[in-house]
Amino acid sequence: MVTTRSSAAARPRPVSLRRRGAVLERAILDAALEQLSTVGWNGLTMEGVAARAQTGKAAVYRRWPSKEDLVAEALQTGLPTFDEAADHGSVREDLYRLGLRMRDAMYSKPGLALRSVIHECDAVTAERFHGLILKGVIEPSTRLMREVVRRGIQRGDVRPDATDAMVVDVGPAMMMYRSKMCGSEWTDADMAEMVDRVMIPLLRPPTG
Amino acid sequence: MVTTRSSAAARPRPVSLRRRGAVLERAILDAALEQLSTVGWNGLTMEGVAARAQTGKAAVYRRWPSKEDLVAEALQTGLPTFDEAADHGSVREDLYRLGLRMRDAMYSKPGLALRSVIHECDAVTAERFHGLILKGVIEPSTRLMREVVRRGIQRGDVRPDATDAMVVDVGPAMMMYRSKMCGSEWTDADMAEMVDRVMIPLLRPPTG
Repeated sequence: MVTTRSSAAARPRPVSLRRRGAVLERAILDAALEQLSTVGWNGLTMEGVAARAQTGKAAVYRRWPSKEDLVAEALQTGLPTFDEAADHGSVREDLYRLGLRMRDAMYSKPGLALRSVIHECDAVTAERFHGLILKGVIEPSTRLMREVVRRGIQRGDVRPDATDAMVVDVGPAMMMYRSKMCGSEWTDADMAEMVDRVMIPLLRPPTG
Repeated sequence: MVTTRSSAAARPRPVSLRRRGAVLERAILDAALEQLSTVGWNGLTMEGVAARAQTGKAAVYRRWPSKEDLVAEALQTGLPTFDEAADHGSVREDLYRLGLRMRDAMYSKPGLALRSVIHECDAVTAERFHGLILKGVIEPSTRLMREVVRRGIQRGDVRPDATDAMVVDVGPAMMMYRSKMCGSEWTDADMAEMVDRVMIPLLRPPTG
């Protein structure tokens, strides 16, 4: 099926082009992610993205009025989703596996792109992307942490009073801190260490 | 005893000018801090600082060849020092008091100036100031945390195996994270909550 990539047409699309629209959009978003990882926020241009996606500038602008809009959606759709925390049989395993998922999101191409974007762009734009981290990574992770803790309380491997708001922040806080301050890359061994030496002592019931 | 903080002078100073030199330098550094808090990194100029300190531009440049040098020293000398962690009788009190000191440093005028500078300046310069946070705030705080933990182990209110590197990062990590992600201002009550609901469970001995 030959379809036109014309960027100008405002005329209604025939049904046969609808899939093409989504495919084109995905191509543009991927091109934006690729540009972010090569030339960064400052080097990214709508023209460059369009060229990379083998389309015209107008096709990009029609869907995304600004660079921020485009990059925000590229990152958002690129970041992994956090639906539920699987039950691995113990709070230790649940925490370890969830930690690895968070680590993978942080160090994924979109995750790294997101953090480098925040580093490069001006304060106002950074606020918007900051919100993206919050909504797209932090809040889901915290929700899943709470699920893991609740399950642990039910199993009996977490103390019943471990429901404090701050408790579920410890994992994410440590990951950000050691990444930013110590340049840590959070290997699997680092994650195991954090779970075993910090989270488990924090959460386990007092032995009777 | 008046001591000079001059970074440039290799020549011997006449005794009668030594006090003036230090006083002038302090005035310039204070002017730099003041400029940072009003017009920020971008608005700060060597001329503006000189005018504020009621001196000439050359007096500033002679001691600090660049804006980064000047601001780095202004922040460095402005941040509180962390010599030792006083013994307050229990690990809970020791942690709480140390936490408040760290909070005060983070939210002091130089502390806020430091963080806003990192926010505003380019990536290369930010690295340098990042190093300043590391050396001037993080490393001393971590050292004091270790002291508090060791003392607690000796007293018996901290478990003997709480000597992991990651354990002493939890406090600083939580402070940075909740400040950055949640916009927390770390009130005394927040600090008490963190100590009582996170640090104490993490550190206390298993009850026998």
